Amino acid sequence: MKLARRLANLGTEKAFAVSDEAAALTKRGRKIFPFHIGDLNFDTPVNIVEAAEKAIRDGHTGYCPNQGIEELRLALARDVNRSHGTSYTAENVAIQPGGKPVIGKFLLSLMNPGDGVLYPNPGFPIYESMIAYYDGRPRPYGFREGARNFEIRMEHMTHAIEQGTRLLILNDLHNPTGAEAGERELADIAKLVCKNDMYVLCDESYFSIRYEGRSKSLVSLPGVAERCVMLYTFGKKYAMTGWRIGAALGPKEIIDAITLLNVNHESCTNHFIQYAAIEALTGPQDCCRQMTDELKKRRDGAHAILDGIQGIRCYRPNATFYLYPNVTGAMQRRGIEDCEGFRRQVLADTGVSFCTHLHFGARPPDQTESYIRLAYSGIDLDQIEEGLNRLKEFIER
Amino acid sequence: MKLARRLANLGTEKAFAVSDEAAALTKRGRKIFPFHIGDLNFDTPVNIVEAAEKAIRDGHTGYCPNQGIEELRLALARDVNRSHGTSYTAENVAIQPGGKPVIGKFLLSLMNPGDGVLYPNPGFPIYESMIAYYDGRPRPYGFREGARNFEIRMEHMTHAIEQGTRLLILNDLHNPTGAEAGERELADIAKLVCKNDMYVLCDESYFSIRYEGRSKSLVSLPGVAERCVMLYTFGKKYAMTGWRIGAALGPKEIIDAITLLNVNHESCTNHFIQYAAIEALTGPQDCCRQMTDELKKRRDGAHAILDGIQGIRCYRPNATFYLYPNVTGAMQRRGIEDCEGFRRQVLADTGVSFCTHLHFGARPPDQTESYIRLAYSGIDLDQIEEGLNRLKEFIER
Repeated sequence: MKLARRLANLGTEKAFAVSDEAAALTKRGRKIFPFHIGDLNFDTPVNIVEAAEKAIRDGHTGYCPNQGIEELRLALARDVNRSHGTSYTAENVAIQPGGKPVIGKFLLSLMNPGDGVLYPNPGFPIYESMIAYYDGRPRPYGFREGARNFEIRMEHMTHAIEQGTRLLILNDLHNPTGAEAGERELADIAKLVCKNDMYVLCDESYFSIRYEGRSKSLVSLPGVAERCVMLYTFGKKYAMTGWRIGAALGPKEIIDAITLLNVNHESCTNHFIQYAAIEALTGPQDCCRQMTDELKKRRDGAHAILDGIQGIRCYRPNATFYLYPNVTGAMQRRGIEDCEGFRRQVLADTGVSFCTHLHFGARPPDQTESYIRLAYSGIDLDQIEEGLNRLKEFIER
Repeated sequence: MKLARRLANLGTEKAFAVSDEAAALTKRGRKIFPFHIGDLNFDTPVNIVEAAEKAIRDGHTGYCPNQGIEELRLALARDVNRSHGTSYTAENVAIQPGGKPVIGKFLLSLMNPGDGVLYPNPGFPIYESMIAYYDGRPRPYGFREGARNFEIRMEHMTHAIEQGTRLLILNDLHNPTGAEAGERELADIAKLVCKNDMYVLCDESYFSIRYEGRSKSLVSLPGVAERCVMLYTFGKKYAMTGWRIGAALGPKEIIDAITLLNVNHESCTNHFIQYAAIEALTGPQDCCRQMTDELKKRRDGAHAILDGIQGIRCYRPNATFYLYPNVTGAMQRRGIEDCEGFRRQVLADTGVSFCTHLHFGARPPDQTESYIRLAYSGIDLDQIEEGLNRLKEFIER
């Protein structure tokens, strides 16, 4: 069978292989501590569930507009305007079956073959995959360990821009590191973007998963909203990951192109779920508070143990549900040289399952350190503590 | 703003413009007879709705496997094996957010830039759009008016194949004509496909919408299943169009490629709806019978009136929910030369809203006749009769 040649450029989320390994071990009776999954073990709030059920019973089971129903687009535009100080209207919103579809559609709307696209490495692996698949040139930018958290290596951005790159993917509050740009960094990026006539995908999947302070967005800075597509998702904020509903927000011209891609790719997003999304945005928000309160306890519990493990260095980010410890010293203690070997041995010995930096991009030539990513969104606090104490024993034994 | 050049090759469903026109007239208080919509005005059966609600309450609201949940893939493989005599297993199925995504994913899996792809004209407009957008060469095949229904112009297929075309899109039970291939035609196509090492997309969206006899599939013929991706959708069979759930079925190697596209495009299809789809397949099927009984009454009612209009010639297909009358004589009677002008004048004068052959592809150079498509899936029998009697008056006045 001769499959299309273009498939050779298509990447994947290697984290799924870790899920498969963990599932296989569970099936064989092993106790697993699932830190590899960026999914949430919270129920979708009842008011949202009931809104979906009502919409089905009200007969919203046929096709709806390709761009999404106007009521939801309006509600989302208003919600984002409140949090971001933007001035979006319903015509600046295209509803999607999840946040992820926005990545490919942003590229298909703005990238020509051969165009460079800046994206984070480490980062969500679909960025690089989709850039390469649609014939762009992936231009990674890295992170360094800063005073209080990871910091974007701005020199990587400026270098690629000097070489002509005009598209940027920014995932600020960042998977996998939990990093967030400071005001100064955001202002610098905004300046680069406006000065160089660039377009940006702002992946704001984790914008509302935050414990202290307030999330800030590049989109809020003067001149940026006109050059930006925002990836919005209901999945993480409202514990709706499996519902598959999100949106692209941006200038009308780009949103019209994305809507035309909707027509061709999937017609429209599920109709009745869009009413549930309206309820999510306009109904009581205490569910989000409760969830972040619980996630904060998990973050603190996990961080406290990691911080006490010899050979591990770990920030305590104020946002996202990830920790991204530097485990170089721990690996040296155990005499393990490669990160993937470390992951496997920890999993085999302790049942603690996680991803490593290799799941978020190839190791840059100048990176000497090794990192792992611990997601605490899908595992309860007592299990976090039991698992990470096992990890501590494993490393310090 | 410089949008990506590739958008210039992206087509659309022009039928949506007709929907917009009809909606605008309705808003102004005009009575509209909606024959332009291929949507269903039937409720989703209650057992399916309840299965979705139960799945939400059972907590199936997080991510699920990219390929779809195994239980559904197994149920669908079994169901198709029963109706088609195939031997699919769960690994031959990739669940999708609707039937439409299968079109693009088939092409991305098997088509290289510059490859010719045979597709029906008239036909569902997304075929041509996606072929051109992904840098293939659209190679249309036409239909002629046969003894009892439209027939594929096999000489178009053989000509393109002689010129090297190796990919074929077949939509047998056909939108917009309602045509279906006879056993002889299917055998001829199967022979062409196997002899020339071709791959086929079998769009079976209307396989179960049938009034007399049994639907037959190219996939059932020896040697074809290995070279075929079947587009399956729950939307039309179970009145679930707005639920957005469908599937690709085919050889494991292609399904694996399509699953990798799932990973990159949308992660997975809505989780809890997949349980509703299992109930659709394994629960009582009398809902489908009731729906086709009602559709048959509409077909007969609509056909009886059309058949009595001077200048209109219309088959009565045994499948799909479309009628595709030749209106050349009616247009001549009224002195209207172009099809779009005819559509507009009928809409303005009578409120009867429909698409024309121009919504399903550019007019082939050798086509002299004009056709309109009447969908009777979204309009009740009394309205069908009132509307088509108005059409009769308009034409014969």
